[in-house]
Amino acid sequence: MREVTGYAAFGAGEKLQPYRFDRRDLRPHDVAVRVRYCGVCHSDLHAIEAPPPGHLPLVPGHEFVGEVSAVGPEVTGFAVGDAVAVGNIVDSCGVCPPCRAGREVFCEAGVTTTYLGNDRVDGTVTRGAYSTEYVANERFVHPLPDGLDPAAVAPLMCAGVTTWDPLRRYGVGPGDTVGIVGLGGLGHLGVKFAKALGARVAVFTTSPGKEKDALALGADEVVVSSDDAGMAAQAGRFDFVLDTASGKHDVSPYLRVLRLDGTLCMLGLPERYEPEAMALLGRTMTTSGSAGTVSTREMLAFCAEHGLVADVEVLPFAEVNTALERLARNDVRWRFVLEVDPR
Amino acid sequence: MREVTGYAAFGAGEKLQPYRFDRRDLRPHDVAVRVRYCGVCHSDLHAIEAPPPGHLPLVPGHEFVGEVSAVGPEVTGFAVGDAVAVGNIVDSCGVCPPCRAGREVFCEAGVTTTYLGNDRVDGTVTRGAYSTEYVANERFVHPLPDGLDPAAVAPLMCAGVTTWDPLRRYGVGPGDTVGIVGLGGLGHLGVKFAKALGARVAVFTTSPGKEKDALALGADEVVVSSDDAGMAAQAGRFDFVLDTASGKHDVSPYLRVLRLDGTLCMLGLPERYEPEAMALLGRTMTTSGSAGTVSTREMLAFCAEHGLVADVEVLPFAEVNTALERLARNDVRWRFVLEVDPR
Repeated sequence: MREVTGYAAFGAGEKLQPYRFDRRDLRPHDVAVRVRYCGVCHSDLHAIEAPPPGHLPLVPGHEFVGEVSAVGPEVTGFAVGDAVAVGNIVDSCGVCPPCRAGREVFCEAGVTTTYLGNDRVDGTVTRGAYSTEYVANERFVHPLPDGLDPAAVAPLMCAGVTTWDPLRRYGVGPGDTVGIVGLGGLGHLGVKFAKALGARVAVFTTSPGKEKDALALGADEVVVSSDDAGMAAQAGRFDFVLDTASGKHDVSPYLRVLRLDGTLCMLGLPERYEPEAMALLGRTMTTSGSAGTVSTREMLAFCAEHGLVADVEVLPFAEVNTALERLARNDVRWRFVLEVDPR
Repeated sequence: MREVTGYAAFGAGEKLQPYRFDRRDLRPHDVAVRVRYCGVCHSDLHAIEAPPPGHLPLVPGHEFVGEVSAVGPEVTGFAVGDAVAVGNIVDSCGVCPPCRAGREVFCEAGVTTTYLGNDRVDGTVTRGAYSTEYVANERFVHPLPDGLDPAAVAPLMCAGVTTWDPLRRYGVGPGDTVGIVGLGGLGHLGVKFAKALGARVAVFTTSPGKEKDALALGADEVVVSSDDAGMAAQAGRFDFVLDTASGKHDVSPYLRVLRLDGTLCMLGLPERYEPEAMALLGRTMTTSGSAGTVSTREMLAFCAEHGLVADVEVLPFAEVNTALERLARNDVRWRFVLEVDPR
């Protein structure tokens, strides 16, 4: 076993505390990664607030970069010292149609998530990358692209692919007008991606104060979504709207800004959506969450080509609770990253 | 003016009574149609129950066939005596992008419906085809295909295009597994179309007694949607589900039977749908209603080629209230058609 040090919640809603635990010994296709930077995702907050039975102590963290510290005997794609990145999926059956298509998030046998998951071999719960080392099957380990700030790559591995995948699936590109609802960890990357893909981009926000930020990120315009008249003026303008806002909210206004045949893609997961039937007439609505290895590889290549990374605020590992507290009150532009391993 | 005789509701929810009224004199591009058969649509019931202000006396009827009785001076496509069919749209702006694409139902200026509409020229309310003659712009008059029973063509003009359009838009064809929710005026045509397009077809019904009917219409299988275990066994099987059920119901079970990237198309229009977010993950949902001239022409050609018509029960015009009462309690297989003009 491989002893590691991390931060864990020992009870629901509790502050994280230092925690020593063991990683498994390497299997033939495993890669051990010494964690250098780990992003702080909104879902980490949710997990700490409501940890599922059996997962305490809970170690969050599912978007990270680091260096390969050991490899299993059958690993050929990585060597010790390689810079790598890992996201929120660390195993899947590998043989069902979605897995064969590289869309492992839809694995018919169920994916193993980076934490809150269960290992496919021994059933043990997975513990995340708020820790000094992680062990994963090489299929879910990606080479870190050259030339990008590693700390700012970490959030690409969850927030990044989550926004990238639907933008690509719906063919966003030049000539399209795209709306991004919400400006946070996901939304700010949605703006950067949509813009780099060649679309005209509007940010929908409930916060008039975010206008300057949105434009600085590359948005062409900002629509204050709490302004009914302003929203009405947008009717039928958008080819695609990516709704990154968490929490339950009325989706109908975002359906109405779509053109005929336009698509609203939801990333937030309340229990139910409640679209007005007439707002959905001639339009489509879908939900997306995370993505698989094909999208991840494609996104990393695109980011390398365009020099595109997340806007991050890096905090020392020991300040993990500060990061979580500030994230909980949306005091972040736009993603916290923990420096797990200062050099 | 052209005096006609019809049946009208004189108050909300009242029985229809004979009603004499005038049709407009023909404009240059108008066609007058002597109504021979008019289908009885579920929306006729809704209109009678809740007529909008200004529309009484309400003359329903928006799927009919008949013969051209007169043409305006600039009409070139029709001559007196031609057999024709008209649906639920009788005018639109003609110049907006949806109109240019033949998808007039989405006219940006608003369509003129066959009844409950307002004429684009003089603003008068439109009155439907539960009447001896109708006057419409030639753009919305279609030649009746040869070789089909005219009475059984009438329902194609509303129930038909409403199911045809989404099946075609989503490319239903050989190799697809398609679900049709609800077996009624719309659903029975959905089964026939999907089958004729080459798909494998399952009917989802809450009524176990409809199994034999569904198979007789060409369905390959029947799923009783109130059977939770039976529904769970369908998970991920369907490429496309067309939900023709009226009335509010949970759409999530029909999302869960879809494969990854599958589409649920709703035809019913409650105020809101309430899909579970997780059921929509990786799937899409849309709403469709009626269609435009391009779909209508395409459908009529397909029906002529395949000898496909609605299954109808023809009642004399004077029995209009019987038809409505029986439709209200779903005592119909599968569409009532009024014989307005017995020969």
